[in-house]
Amino acid sequence: MKFEVTILGSSSATPVYNRNPTAQLLNCNEKFYLIDCGEGTQQQLIRFGFKANKIDFVFISHLHGDHYFGLIGLLSSLHLNGRIKPIKIFAPAALAEILELQFKHSETVIRYPVEFVATQTDAPAEIFENADLKVETIILNHRIPCTGFKFVQKKRLRKLIVEKLEAEEIPVDCYPLLKRGADLDLPDGRVLLNADYTTDSDRPKQYCYCSDTLFDETYFESIQGCDTLYHEATFLHEMVDRANQTHHTTALQAAEIAKMTGAAKLLIGHFSSRYKTLQPLLEEARSVFENTELAIEGNTYTI
Amino acid sequence: MKFEVTILGSSSATPVYNRNPTAQLLNCNEKFYLIDCGEGTQQQLIRFGFKANKIDFVFISHLHGDHYFGLIGLLSSLHLNGRIKPIKIFAPAALAEILELQFKHSETVIRYPVEFVATQTDAPAEIFENADLKVETIILNHRIPCTGFKFVQKKRLRKLIVEKLEAEEIPVDCYPLLKRGADLDLPDGRVLLNADYTTDSDRPKQYCYCSDTLFDETYFESIQGCDTLYHEATFLHEMVDRANQTHHTTALQAAEIAKMTGAAKLLIGHFSSRYKTLQPLLEEARSVFENTELAIEGNTYTI
Repeated sequence: MKFEVTILGSSSATPVYNRNPTAQLLNCNEKFYLIDCGEGTQQQLIRFGFKANKIDFVFISHLHGDHYFGLIGLLSSLHLNGRIKPIKIFAPAALAEILELQFKHSETVIRYPVEFVATQTDAPAEIFENADLKVETIILNHRIPCTGFKFVQKKRLRKLIVEKLEAEEIPVDCYPLLKRGADLDLPDGRVLLNADYTTDSDRPKQYCYCSDTLFDETYFESIQGCDTLYHEATFLHEMVDRANQTHHTTALQAAEIAKMTGAAKLLIGHFSSRYKTLQPLLEEARSVFENTELAIEGNTYTI
Repeated sequence: MKFEVTILGSSSATPVYNRNPTAQLLNCNEKFYLIDCGEGTQQQLIRFGFKANKIDFVFISHLHGDHYFGLIGLLSSLHLNGRIKPIKIFAPAALAEILELQFKHSETVIRYPVEFVATQTDAPAEIFENADLKVETIILNHRIPCTGFKFVQKKRLRKLIVEKLEAEEIPVDCYPLLKRGADLDLPDGRVLLNADYTTDSDRPKQYCYCSDTLFDETYFESIQGCDTLYHEATFLHEMVDRANQTHHTTALQAAEIAKMTGAAKLLIGHFSSRYKTLQPLLEEARSVFENTELAIEGNTYTI
């Protein structure tokens, strides 16, 4: 099952040439989840060949503009392009008010249902679940209320050893129950022990998204042991005072967090516009946590 | 004196690959005026090498998102990049409310003065004047209140014939009065007839900007005889019914308007996303009004 994230924007507060504000597109089993939506996200989707209309769920971490100014444009374009299926938005409550005011003054009546779910910042909570994954909030420490998101794949059904089943002419009617782990007594007297005909499914993977936050141990439990940790790394550690002051993280701190929480892989992004080249941020992080990659726009990372 | 306009966006309602929503940057004597500000305008400014901080005046035609969704991001970036000088925004009144709500929820206190001037749509009005130009509104006919803008250069001072003045050793102290058209009696008894030492300045030019509108003769008087008429041309004329229904104009109609109002040059833009190539729109307009050009992003047009 596909579980991968494409970077649509990797800049912090202000865009720079070649780096747009934050947005990511998560593909889980060919269902698409948009995570944050900075200005120009719809143009980035076009640029990288994604159909915006495939997105059914949007997760907005907080109401600093570099994480949501692109949403009103995206929703408007979906409307103008004839969308009819619903979209569900998980975001701070005030976002609904902001969008409604803009639709009101453009006299736009969105022709598809937009469902809002207000995120809370008092404690981590499970906010979404479907057949493929569930999503929990991560309570980050930023200047305004801010939640990260933890995307956890569901445990899949057991995998059939099809060659063996076919060789022994086991009826296909048995397959669904075998996938669910059952042993079977067949009418012809044969006994099928599940372990002989199936193998365990892949371990469910976790993707944690920490958009904007101070280095703060309170959320480490939420992101413990994830497969890919996306963590902001706005500054080099020589600017740790500035990071503390603005409630951001340095590349070194992001790497320390990955190490402390047992992440398998670290993806860093939300780079300050002061960095023309990102190599120093990568090298700083790798000095602490080797399996680090830069979040580069247009790149897709398997989780 | 420089008087030119650079196209930052030429798409209608939804962006397409290579075309962004509407925005234009007018340069009049090295002062910069932003006209509409679709999503991604700040990225376009970066892309084409303009410093956003040079913009002191913004004119927003109406509150359809493809004409203003980029403004909140631009204002935020100016704030984050340390702007302190004021900016003045001419726009429908509700825009102030929309911006304030977003600043409130991001807990942003913009550190430079933002002055709003609410445009009215009952009658054309002069809304701005400085040493270089004045600006009047054009009352367009769109689905929601919408004003175009007419930028009229001020009459410049007379041009000195410097070689002659230097050859006759006329004191430079006389130059300012000569520029203003005065004849002079010099203390040494010489009489300077202004016409002998100066020539008339260039004729003041006019740029008319008609963003979104139905073909409607009521605004033709406002745009009479302009040097460059920018007029939306969303559709080919084969879609005139759709143009009427959505209160837009066809390329053929834009050309007819240029002809009827005696424009010297026509610039067409606001192209529907259905047109991959724009040549048919250009050809249709040129069949009626030869001196037509396409508004191409990144191109600068002398007025």
